[in-house]
Amino acid sequence: MADPTPEPLQTNEELILAFLSDGGDDFTSGEAISDKLGLSRAAIWKHVESLRQKGYRIEAVPARGYRLVEIPDRLTALEIAPHLNTRDIGRVIHYRESVTSTNELAFRLASEGASHGEVVVAEEQTHGKGRRGRSWLSPAGLNLYFSVVLRPDLSPHRAPELTLVAAVAGVDALRALGVSPGIKWPNDLMIDSRKVGGILTELSSDPDRIHFAILGMGINLNGARSEFPAEIAPTAASVAEAIKGKVRRARFAADLWGRLENWLDVHAEEGFGKIRDVWRQSCLTLGQEVAVQTGKEQIVGRAEDIDETGALVISTAEGTRRRILAGDVEQVRRRPLPD
Amino acid sequence: MADPTPEPLQTNEELILAFLSDGGDDFTSGEAISDKLGLSRAAIWKHVESLRQKGYRIEAVPARGYRLVEIPDRLTALEIAPHLNTRDIGRVIHYRESVTSTNELAFRLASEGASHGEVVVAEEQTHGKGRRGRSWLSPAGLNLYFSVVLRPDLSPHRAPELTLVAAVAGVDALRALGVSPGIKWPNDLMIDSRKVGGILTELSSDPDRIHFAILGMGINLNGARSEFPAEIAPTAASVAEAIKGKVRRARFAADLWGRLENWLDVHAEEGFGKIRDVWRQSCLTLGQEVAVQTGKEQIVGRAEDIDETGALVISTAEGTRRRILAGDVEQVRRRPLPD
Repeated sequence: MADPTPEPLQTNEELILAFLSDGGDDFTSGEAISDKLGLSRAAIWKHVESLRQKGYRIEAVPARGYRLVEIPDRLTALEIAPHLNTRDIGRVIHYRESVTSTNELAFRLASEGASHGEVVVAEEQTHGKGRRGRSWLSPAGLNLYFSVVLRPDLSPHRAPELTLVAAVAGVDALRALGVSPGIKWPNDLMIDSRKVGGILTELSSDPDRIHFAILGMGINLNGARSEFPAEIAPTAASVAEAIKGKVRRARFAADLWGRLENWLDVHAEEGFGKIRDVWRQSCLTLGQEVAVQTGKEQIVGRAEDIDETGALVISTAEGTRRRILAGDVEQVRRRPLPD
Repeated sequence: MADPTPEPLQTNEELILAFLSDGGDDFTSGEAISDKLGLSRAAIWKHVESLRQKGYRIEAVPARGYRLVEIPDRLTALEIAPHLNTRDIGRVIHYRESVTSTNELAFRLASEGASHGEVVVAEEQTHGKGRRGRSWLSPAGLNLYFSVVLRPDLSPHRAPELTLVAAVAGVDALRALGVSPGIKWPNDLMIDSRKVGGILTELSSDPDRIHFAILGMGINLNGARSEFPAEIAPTAASVAEAIKGKVRRARFAADLWGRLENWLDVHAEEGFGKIRDVWRQSCLTLGQEVAVQTGKEQIVGRAEDIDETGALVISTAEGTRRRILAGDVEQVRRRPLPD
């Protein structure tokens, strides 16, 4: 691994935090921490000071001990790990204040041997990537931008299914926050017809096998729509505005990764059929009149279904059925017929 | 580009070589070279000395000039460029005495921005890659191992077609040497039922587009079969043994790249149909009883065709038709029925 600062699995700071967190509003004595973790009282004090410098508010009262008062809104393993309930995803977190794009860094780490489940998380992306070479606006500190290294046992031609698995997990996690999200084919997460999240799956493969896939997601959690540029604001959504409250990012990330791992397990064990069923239930595109822009042509018709490969099936006005593997979908209204 | 030593397009050494080469068995005067290239006589002498150190035998006779007597069997731009008749492929050559694998280096260079047509050539691969994570035996100095960076305007699901384009080009180039090669699906080049070459296409993509493809080929040109390890020798072929003569590697490489570029143009302009027709004519697999090992199962039956996606179509004994996208094919003989 060429990465200079991979987060270790469980540091003493994390263990102390978890212990204080378990204590809730009660004080935890230095002696108890010392007994539990085998650290000297001086070492504990040093770790508490270090945590305070990272934004943790920890009260220290002589003869009573320590109490965790406030957790900073950051996305390192320190904040995420206590909420994490996964086998692989997020067990190694590569945290960065700023990256060009989390997908780009994750692709490089995977090329150098990063394992299934390793995650790159960044506070900010300076060149966040969307589909078709577009950019994904990624201001610092408000939202969630991450990329997971996946090493699935899957034929390369089935790789597009991974995007749909991620969309299903994203819908699940957003729903748990109390919003009613939907999916716009193939991979936009929507709230009230406005985009709140996107997914970009990148692949390294040969015809026989996937070497690795990078599953990147960007979700607008706490950004205010008024802060979006004018050309994006009308079509963008923010979870915080939808739920009228701030999203705790670390908890949301841990929850989303847990759901992602579960749905990836379902996909691996039961195949695409089950994913497709669930995806269909959240899809906003099916049943609509749409215009799909593929690389070379525009196909207009009714979005009937997704098939067993994840392709969108359109029935055109000419009565033909078209399978579309990649493209941009716009919903259109048929003009009312003249009397 | 992070590559430390990309070969420039046309060096003075290359220009001098080309000029001497044009002269054939005649001497070319230092004056003529000086006039043509605008170099001093001392500079020409320095370049001639440098070429000699690289294995070029150049005769120098006072008052007559220089004469090229022998070209070393190397694969740098110096040897290849004079034979090269391409627009893009091989116009930039990254030559290495030894690499882990040409595909690996080409993949890295492409990630860092290498252009369509840039080629990695190596005298030796220490970890040459075959299909399905297998190794490709790559002893030094005898054969041809290269990888081309391709940036085709092609949907990712059509990437497997590139392997078939390369197979067609490989057959063409081998045929021009006077052998009768065939293709074993999907990508083995065969002489007399023994493997003489292999192709490994690796891909970086997202569902919407191919970022780049790395097309790697290894061809046993001058290696003697007796030098192969015992487990490979019975199924391996060497061009030199088939034509009973040594192959000039640089000329062969230039010729193959020219044919590859032509077939890629045909593919881009006319689509896969034309490639498929030509591929079929050289395919040894079609019409045979075969056992195909895919990741999970073995499928036995008659290889009927390749379909419009490059998949092998097998009709099984049970009367079903199966499409196979990736797998290992073994030819089998049906046991004669008992009387």
